[in-house]
Amino acid sequence: MRIKVGVSVRHVHLTEEDYNLLFDESLKSERELNQPGQFAAKQKVTLKIGTRTIENVRIIGPCRDYTQVELSKTDTYYLKINAPVRTSGDLKDAKGITIVGPKGSITRKAAIIADRHIHITKEDRELLQLSDDEYQVLIKGEKSGILGNVKIKEAPNSYFELHLDSDDANAFNLKQGDEVEIVKVKIWKKIKKTKGKSFQS
Amino acid sequence: MRIKVGVSVRHVHLTEEDYNLLFDESLKSERELNQPGQFAAKQKVTLKIGTRTIENVRIIGPCRDYTQVELSKTDTYYLKINAPVRTSGDLKDAKGITIVGPKGSITRKAAIIADRHIHITKEDRELLQLSDDEYQVLIKGEKSGILGNVKIKEAPNSYFELHLDSDDANAFNLKQGDEVEIVKVKIWKKIKKTKGKSFQS
Repeated sequence: MRIKVGVSVRHVHLTEEDYNLLFDESLKSERELNQPGQFAAKQKVTLKIGTRTIENVRIIGPCRDYTQVELSKTDTYYLKINAPVRTSGDLKDAKGITIVGPKGSITRKAAIIADRHIHITKEDRELLQLSDDEYQVLIKGEKSGILGNVKIKEAPNSYFELHLDSDDANAFNLKQGDEVEIVKVKIWKKIKKTKGKSFQS
Repeated sequence: MRIKVGVSVRHVHLTEEDYNLLFDESLKSERELNQPGQFAAKQKVTLKIGTRTIENVRIIGPCRDYTQVELSKTDTYYLKINAPVRTSGDLKDAKGITIVGPKGSITRKAAIIADRHIHITKEDRELLQLSDDEYQVLIKGEKSGILGNVKIKEAPNSYFELHLDSDDANAFNLKQGDEVEIVKVKIWKKIKKTKGKSFQS
């Protein structure tokens, strides 16, 4: 079954309280996202850890119940932190990071690497028979392969879409709107091992 | 069969002539690489396209018969170019890029994204029965999957190692020295498609 790819570049979610510590103006949409009600805001922040900074990081609105910074692994090397892979909203072991706005700055245990996930409604999930919690996706092309650990994220008013971070997308030359194939096989067990002895260098 | 991962971050190879246009001093090794005779040089350059620059890019020595800049897809987005995926040494459709050293600068059609490849000697290849031109590698962990299009690169004095660029490595949380499994299956045909109708949004 085919699904469209949405590429999530680094972004920030903020609680209303945290947003008001960073900005004096109200949060405004610059561009609607495919997920209903979600938008890329006009407002951007700077991320800071030690001497390393990343500027122009977009806020994704509306405000959330939690403050969260979604980074790629590439970003975490630059910032010199070891952020965990997490489902959005799960901030267990999230790393401390400073978020700077025009009005002020806050430091929160908020930095994660978002997992690979599929947004879907309950109705579509039944229609499409995607009853498992996790799938894989198959990517063709000159940098082909399979991405495992793709979680199903069921919620009302979801737009059926696969969300990947920029590392996953760039490893496979995928861009926003490309289509890939959802698959579900025990590939880890089914694949035939190559012959030959183990190599001892 | 298991193989160690070598992560190639962005780097530059230079002809001796081009090197001498950029530097007054001779090319010196800072650190030996696993591939015999290869080294990360003390000397670094700046890459430049339009107003975008990337500093501190390492030269990998010794000098080559060609000048080549190996970037990740992430780098190419930053530099705003569409560099092709190529085997090292194949500069067909390589993109123009300016390389700046302390002595001068050169502009060459040199920018590529290196393909995924395995370094191996003829002897090891026979011993390990890796007679095909291309394999896949299986990666376990919390960001698991399969990387396709992994080319076999046979040469004398090779160290048996899988070279991935930083996007491929970061998508799967792989770092230098990690081990992955070489596999060879027609996964594109063997995998069971998920049931259910195609989704029409």
